[in-house]
Amino acid sequence: MEVGAADEITALLGRGKVLTDEEVLEKYSTDMGGFRRRPSAVVVAENVEDVSRLLKFCNERKIPVTAWGAGSSLTGAVVSDSIILDLSKLDRILRIDTVNYYVHVEAGVVLERLNRELEKHGFFFPPDPASSFICTVGGVVAEGSGGLRCVKYGTVKDWVLALKVVLADGSVAVFGEPLPKNRAGYNLVQLLVGSEGTLGIIVEAWLKIAPIPDVSVKRVYAVFDSWADAGNAILEIRRRRIVPRMLEFFDSVGLEAANRMHGENLPIGEAMLLIDVEEYRGNETSNLLSILKRNNARTVKIAESEEEAEKLLQIRATMYMALNAISKARVIEDVCVPIDRIVDYLTKVKEISKKYGVVVSMNGHAGDGNIHPSVLYDPDNPDEVKHVEKVVQELIRYSTEIGGTITGEHGVGLQKMRDLAMQLESHNGPQVLELMRRLKKLFDPNNILNPGKYVDMT
Amino acid sequence: MEVGAADEITALLGRGKVLTDEEVLEKYSTDMGGFRRRPSAVVVAENVEDVSRLLKFCNERKIPVTAWGAGSSLTGAVVSDSIILDLSKLDRILRIDTVNYYVHVEAGVVLERLNRELEKHGFFFPPDPASSFICTVGGVVAEGSGGLRCVKYGTVKDWVLALKVVLADGSVAVFGEPLPKNRAGYNLVQLLVGSEGTLGIIVEAWLKIAPIPDVSVKRVYAVFDSWADAGNAILEIRRRRIVPRMLEFFDSVGLEAANRMHGENLPIGEAMLLIDVEEYRGNETSNLLSILKRNNARTVKIAESEEEAEKLLQIRATMYMALNAISKARVIEDVCVPIDRIVDYLTKVKEISKKYGVVVSMNGHAGDGNIHPSVLYDPDNPDEVKHVEKVVQELIRYSTEIGGTITGEHGVGLQKMRDLAMQLESHNGPQVLELMRRLKKLFDPNNILNPGKYVDMT
Repeated sequence: MEVGAADEITALLGRGKVLTDEEVLEKYSTDMGGFRRRPSAVVVAENVEDVSRLLKFCNERKIPVTAWGAGSSLTGAVVSDSIILDLSKLDRILRIDTVNYYVHVEAGVVLERLNRELEKHGFFFPPDPASSFICTVGGVVAEGSGGLRCVKYGTVKDWVLALKVVLADGSVAVFGEPLPKNRAGYNLVQLLVGSEGTLGIIVEAWLKIAPIPDVSVKRVYAVFDSWADAGNAILEIRRRRIVPRMLEFFDSVGLEAANRMHGENLPIGEAMLLIDVEEYRGNETSNLLSILKRNNARTVKIAESEEEAEKLLQIRATMYMALNAISKARVIEDVCVPIDRIVDYLTKVKEISKKYGVVVSMNGHAGDGNIHPSVLYDPDNPDEVKHVEKVVQELIRYSTEIGGTITGEHGVGLQKMRDLAMQLESHNGPQVLELMRRLKKLFDPNNILNPGKYVDMT
Repeated sequence: MEVGAADEITALLGRGKVLTDEEVLEKYSTDMGGFRRRPSAVVVAENVEDVSRLLKFCNERKIPVTAWGAGSSLTGAVVSDSIILDLSKLDRILRIDTVNYYVHVEAGVVLERLNRELEKHGFFFPPDPASSFICTVGGVVAEGSGGLRCVKYGTVKDWVLALKVVLADGSVAVFGEPLPKNRAGYNLVQLLVGSEGTLGIIVEAWLKIAPIPDVSVKRVYAVFDSWADAGNAILEIRRRRIVPRMLEFFDSVGLEAANRMHGENLPIGEAMLLIDVEEYRGNETSNLLSILKRNNARTVKIAESEEEAEKLLQIRATMYMALNAISKARVIEDVCVPIDRIVDYLTKVKEISKKYGVVVSMNGHAGDGNIHPSVLYDPDNPDEVKHVEKVVQELIRYSTEIGGTITGEHGVGLQKMRDLAMQLESHNGPQVLELMRRLKKLFDPNNILNPGKYVDMT
């Protein structure tokens, strides 16, 4: 960014909105995945007009802008060496509509707060990324995020009706309608969902909400002696057409770390499943227990109290941090594989891990095939460092070979650009990445919106 | 189309695939909405290669091509004065995947047949346009169709995972992945859903399927003395967070016509609701009956047998034909209004109808705000003809004034191009239609894919 631009932006937006002191720049330099770039300035927007003015200015000067909600990207999608646009102050819940079943919110609203407000009306917003306690609506829409309940309810993309977007030239448009059905024009909403800040800046969203289901849910915990047994149990759950509200997988490495962090002593095996099953007719839980036992679950328990259920969930939900605590460095992958290939994938991960002598811990949303491999390593051990890149490449390549994707919910960002090109080339055809680049250019001819990421490899 | 082009296409694709005899051209001249254009030739594709070769040829010669599945468009989306490309022979069900919960089908598969096959495995494809007995997968995806069950399950857009598409230049690409979660690149799938044959020709689809729910469903029929009472009952159902599997509205004009057509004698009032309610805890139906009675339902009955339930549904499902039988001519609109404004909308329809002395019959998916006004008239009565256009414009304009859309599920086609421009201008911003036109141009630079429709007003 040219010298003096920050002052010009201050003149445009008013005092206190453009921050350039070292401490602030440092705070906005790293995302939750550890990707790092140092911005030249942070602009804190207070309203849509601020965003519009900033983009108009930056588009004319060709200054890159990267939107920031909470910095909880795991792929480098929100770091930048130019301007970071912090939208967290746009945090009004504008309307909770309990007849039309939507909520109209500004981009900076934190998901957990949104759900607390919705609960008062008997509603909820189903997609629940693990970062819900900090992540913002704008962030989860731009990322098309997933979460634990998505196995039943789908991901964020399935819950967005309309978006207010500031386009690259600073003009403001609304995509879609806050209606359950609308066929007026091409679906621009879904182009923006998962666009990672590269097509426009999302400033408001109309999100579908659902009545909190009035049904009893049992939380079931199962311990297996092998990854394959747990995988086969998942297959049988699917074949018997049981759709749980949550179906999580984790391994001994993750559980040991979480047990230690929480001072807990959950029964441990090679693989664990944590499953929420809805009880409509009174036999769903017993059917599930039979499936788990048939697939060699060594221990199966049903949470007997809300406290116990909550504890089980916390163990799973904080595994991300627990694994960080026991490893010096870590690469988190986000493959999603066809569910009928999940046992093959788990078997391959064991092989790769053994071949290179590197620990790969698996945990995630196994019910939809989206298990995150975590490659743990010591950055001061040159042998391990040498192997990590190969391990990651084999993990990714095998997932695409069996019909999986390189990213189920974390997105591309800086981390997976090369992998994205590989997947599109092998699964979708040689012209698809080029089509996406032309789309990007159509929306952002001066390439100011989060450039150098996602489909923009130039 | 230039003289000799049909022969060249025959040389390219082989004998018997290019039809130009009068009888055939006549058959492909009209859609189900009565829109009419006479094609210069009909090409019957037998495989993806045929589609690819045809498009390559037509793109080089700039000859328009319009895809055709069953001709069941209600808006003129499938009629053309150039080449009609019939895809109905691409009718293979390639894979029913009962672990990954998707079906991989060719574009010409008829929805009803698909559901018959799925039922054998305990699955179904939820969106159910009234034309399911003839409409094809390619058609419903290109239209982003709705239906009766969409009030609970969403429309076609919510059930498409991936598409094989022949692009304007004849190249073949796959958009998306047959996976429950995938974040690899911009969402091209949803650009194609609802694109009405203007961005590419859909030749295969991977559609999500759902286990047939193992829950008791009651079919409830209610008769009201006024449209407003029925509308208020819908509001209370929503406010009490009841999500029925079907919630249909129809009026006395529609029911009289259907009673006559079927030789039935269903109790009649000013407005009727037909509701499928799922019984989980055993009190849902009685709760619903209380709501209906509180809102002045004069008669409420629960179908006592499968036969009775089926008869009620048939009355509703065939109302389209019954109304055709009693009116010489008819304009079918497709507005979808915010549900909290449904009583306002019904009241306004009564006013407009009275003001112009024209019969407007209402029936449709009131549970999601999508009630179709049908303007019935006599084309030989100059007074009525004069009024019809004004009635239609008032019906549409008022729906957009109260936050509704000009089309909930039928799409734009030839019928609603001007209305589309009006809605986008007033709800979405002046640049949105232009953005859509640039998208169209990006996918189809020579404007050969179903030109002169949808966003292409030039």
